[in-house]
Amino acid sequence: MEVGFLGLGIMGKAMSMNLLKNGFKVTVWNRTLSKCNELVEFGASIGETPAQVVKKCKLTIAMLSDPAAALSVVFDKDGVLEQTGSGKGYIDMSTVDPETSSKISQAITSKGGAFLEAPVSGSKQPAETGQLVILAAGDKGLYEESIPAFDVLGKKSFFLGQVGNGAKMKLVINMIMGSVMNAFSEGLVLSERSGLNPHDLLDVLDLGAIANPMFKGKGPAMLKSNYSPAFPLKHQQKDMRLALALGDENAVSMPVAAAANESFKKARSMGLGDLDFSSVHEILKMTKD
Amino acid sequence: MEVGFLGLGIMGKAMSMNLLKNGFKVTVWNRTLSKCNELVEFGASIGETPAQVVKKCKLTIAMLSDPAAALSVVFDKDGVLEQTGSGKGYIDMSTVDPETSSKISQAITSKGGAFLEAPVSGSKQPAETGQLVILAAGDKGLYEESIPAFDVLGKKSFFLGQVGNGAKMKLVINMIMGSVMNAFSEGLVLSERSGLNPHDLLDVLDLGAIANPMFKGKGPAMLKSNYSPAFPLKHQQKDMRLALALGDENAVSMPVAAAANESFKKARSMGLGDLDFSSVHEILKMTKD
Amino acid sequence: MEVGFLGLGIMGKAMSMNLLKNGFKVTVWNRTLSKCNELVEFGASIGETPAQVVKKCKLTIAMLSDPAAALSVVFDKDGVLEQTGSGKGYIDMSTVDPETSSKISQAITSKGGAFLEAPVSGSKQPAETGQLVILAAGDKGLYEESIPAFDVLGKKSFFLGQVGNGAKMKLVINMIMGSVMNAFSEGLVLSERSGLNPHDLLDVLDLGAIANPMFKGKGPAMLKSNYSPAFPLKHQQKDMRLALALGDENAVSMPVAAAANESFKKARSMGLGDLDFSSVHEILKMTKD
Amino acid sequence: MEVGFLGLGIMGKAMSMNLLKNGFKVTVWNRTLSKCNELVEFGASIGETPAQVVKKCKLTIAMLSDPAAALSVVFDKDGVLEQTGSGKGYIDMSTVDPETSSKISQAITSKGGAFLEAPVSGSKQPAETGQLVILAAGDKGLYEESIPAFDVLGKKSFFLGQVGNGAKMKLVINMIMGSVMNAFSEGLVLSERSGLNPHDLLDVLDLGAIANPMFKGKGPAMLKSNYSPAFPLKHQQKDMRLALALGDENAVSMPVAAAANESFKKARSMGLGDLDFSSVHEILKMTKD
Repeated sequence: MEVGFLGLGIMGKAMSMNLLKNGFKVTVWNRTLSKCNELVEFGASIGETPAQVVKKCKLTIAMLSDPAAALSVVFDKDGVLEQTGSGKGYIDMSTVDPETSSKISQAITSKGGAFLEAPVSGSKQPAETGQLVILAAGDKGLYEESIPAFDVLGKKSFFLGQVGNGAKMKLVINMIMGSVMNAFSEGLVLSERSGLNPHDLLDVLDLGAIANPMFKGKGPAMLKSNYSPAFPLKHQQKDMRLALALGDENAVSMPVAAAANESFKKARSMGLGDLDFSSVHEILKMTKD
Repeated sequence: MEVGFLGLGIMGKAMSMNLLKNGFKVTVWNRTLSKCNELVEFGASIGETPAQVVKKCKLTIAMLSDPAAALSVVFDKDGVLEQTGSGKGYIDMSTVDPETSSKISQAITSKGGAFLEAPVSGSKQPAETGQLVILAAGDKGLYEESIPAFDVLGKKSFFLGQVGNGAKMKLVINMIMGSVMNAFSEGLVLSERSGLNPHDLLDVLDLGAIANPMFKGKGPAMLKSNYSPAFPLKHQQKDMRLALALGDENAVSMPVAAAANESFKKARSMGLGDLDFSSVHEILKMTKD
Repeated sequence: MEVGFLGLGIMGKAMSMNLLKNGFKVTVWNRTLSKCNELVEFGASIGETPAQVVKKCKLTIAMLSDPAAALSVVFDKDGVLEQTGSGKGYIDMSTVDPETSSKISQAITSKGGAFLEAPVSGSKQPAETGQLVILAAGDKGLYEESIPAFDVLGKKSFFLGQVGNGAKMKLVINMIMGSVMNAFSEGLVLSERSGLNPHDLLDVLDLGAIANPMFKGKGPAMLKSNYSPAFPLKHQQKDMRLALALGDENAVSMPVAAAANESFKKARSMGLGDLDFSSVHEILKMTKD
Repeated sequence: MEVGFLGLGIMGKAMSMNLLKNGFKVTVWNRTLSKCNELVEFGASIGETPAQVVKKCKLTIAMLSDPAAALSVVFDKDGVLEQTGSGKGYIDMSTVDPETSSKISQAITSKGGAFLEAPVSGSKQPAETGQLVILAAGDKGLYEESIPAFDVLGKKSFFLGQVGNGAKMKLVINMIMGSVMNAFSEGLVLSERSGLNPHDLLDVLDLGAIANPMFKGKGPAMLKSNYSPAFPLKHQQKDMRLALALGDENAVSMPVAAAANESFKKARSMGLGDLDFSSVHEILKMTKD
């Protein structure tokens, strides 16, 4: 199977490498073309522009850093739009907001192309080992054609319906995660302040009904006030804001998420925005002393 | 090793049976003595009063339904207090408040006996399979002597320091669990109301950083509005109230737990107190229609 | 002093009438021109288009129903923009969002005109009696020239700095008011449910440190579940959302406003959006029975 | 009319002086008897013990500093209980918890005496000027007999039903006040952080629907971070805790009060407990800088 791949950042490079190793023919493009070289060594071809990649491949995947890059690759000169059309499929796996996704979708489909948004859950390591979770939405036929690629890239893929649902699912997941992080931090502080050993709390939690990888992975670091950023607090808070806005549109009252969001905002105001989102723990710990 | 066992309710029966099957000599007592018969078939002896059990055994374990029963077994006529003393150990594994625990501890130790509070995490099934988590606090020496019994009863036991810490640890755990349940329910409602399939949400959650047994175990039932009570909402809410009171004593601000507590209170006011604590989901789902 | 007046709805009619009665020469315009007749009887002139009014008057005031109308009167054919310019002042007293206000401001000032946003606090009755509170922002010189008119229209006017600040001030005020309404409703429910007479609560409140016109005016109606809309709940909730968004931009954590907002959202989901914002009381009162 | 008066602290002295000035015959007692002298100059008699005062007067009023003092005056040797009985009325105007009040009530009434709890709203100045608000509950007949005294001491008195209701009413009032203070502080911070002048906010608030003495009285001081304690934050937070506990008993969900309580707790943890409760403003203002 032949695929195009646009964007060779940390994620894109790992993903396109996976495709190559699993027997796919891959034509890559990156804004800085030199980044393509390593992949060429493993058998990739190079496309000089997004348009050339789309012209050559029935199926093109993009993995870009932000909404601006996602739009540029489609709408700029020599962009995807110039060569898409009937029989062409375009899958944007970048994390973008629903508006960006809709805009790209409309442009592609109005030219006769098929579009899928497919943001992923998981970062560098799962990308390298093909263990991403893929949240696809848009053209069902294109989703089905793409399953061989998704099977290589992820441990599981979902088809979630219309364009926008991939982004929404990520917001809901991140909202729950943000509330859970606050619940966890509050518990750590309460244990310590009421004379328990918070390391015991971690051990007891890990044996119980709400044992989960995040408590296990982040708990010990949090007790050392180590918050090197896997997912920066300011991004977590932005996702909670967007999830709460989604709730507002649909008249869903979510008092716990709202309270968690205010603690994240307090953390931002105390200068913790660039640390890991687990640093909300510092806000809850804060005392006079 | 020989142990006494007071209280043969659902939990106590399973636990004493486990001890018997693992080669312990067990002398049992229950308020309704007929409940002892089944255990006698498996080799247990009967003590006619708590005092007789304590007289016979160096180590006595109690597993009673509530604080009133826990106090009665110790302080009433023919109670534990009449025979405890130097060389005797008493372990109360019932779930009681810190005050009850302290009262029993003082009475036992003033007679020269050794005391351990050891509430457990886990219900009927883990009790039967010896998979409880044991949160012991009080006499360190008694804890160490009791390890062979704890190894049979639980998958893991903790020694948490002074009497009261076992009860506190349970409160902290249950507080986190209650907040997490609210975060989860809010996410389920948001997904459904914004056009996603909440079953997809369950699947995606189960592949991610906050995957945990509670989401997996209760999620599908919640989506069917099935809330048969494993842990009644009114008890969960009581534990949150007590945990918040513990936070108040120690000036710990816990806005997410406070918001979760208010939703549980709303659920109580809507008549859901006797259902499972996951029924807070109904409050969050509630609309005009 | 001669002024133009655009928009003769409930508010605009009362305000232009006040100006006439206080000796101003007023040239009025309204989309449905027949609405001008009553004012002509009191001495007003008619302008056939917004442009004609601006051409004739150095100072033109607009009081329109919503952002769409505010934009249309300025930008459409025969609109304000065609005749504004150096020496002309335009004051928009409609309640609009900061973006609308900025858009109008830029258009007017780029033509050389002077602009003031001046939303008001107060509804029909204060408009009739000249008791509005005027929240002006934009051109300081124009504000000073307009003081004679503001003195007639309002009991007090404020100059708040740059364009946008008038709208922001309204949001902050409404946010506080929404939180206070929730605090009040919670207290009413608590009093009733704990065996007090909520009418006594109203009387005691009215003698104390937080006695205020809203408690006095709305309290008795709320106890009769009478929520005829002076300020619809859905608009109150929208203003809280916008105020919280303003807080988000500036990293201001506001947990009480966030909790109040979630109760208003719950009220919306229960179908109370078109009733008065005091109907959030129904949400807090809700029980099984 | 002749009354006894027990307790001559700041409040008690002002109140008994008022009674004297308005023609009442007053017999006073205070633990430190020398404090009685000033009142003797104005015509008061001295009772050497609480029992002697009660023996002499049909009606005795107490105004003591805390529950311990309120209990001591009744139950200790030479206390009220020794001389109360049929035909004697005892009015405790101290601020105590419902349990203390009930205990005193039961003791007095079991001896045949009549009892009224009558906590007041208002501090030193209203006590001096007879402008207290009196929240009486208990014996209706005694309430009616006491009206002449209450008319001197307060601007208004309420009879609220059974013993305990006076204390409950104070809790509800203080809960609302605490939430309103948080709403106000959040608004002040939002105004300042989003480029408005918070003094303008105070002025605009004072002209609107939620204008109240507390905003007017405390607002300017809060903007100068002046929090000299009229009502210490730790007492306000205790009252919110007790009001929330009352809500818990009655299954009343109060999310705004709960959020306000958590901010007050944060303030306590930051060492602000002894300052005025308006110092919660500092918590909300707190940033990195």
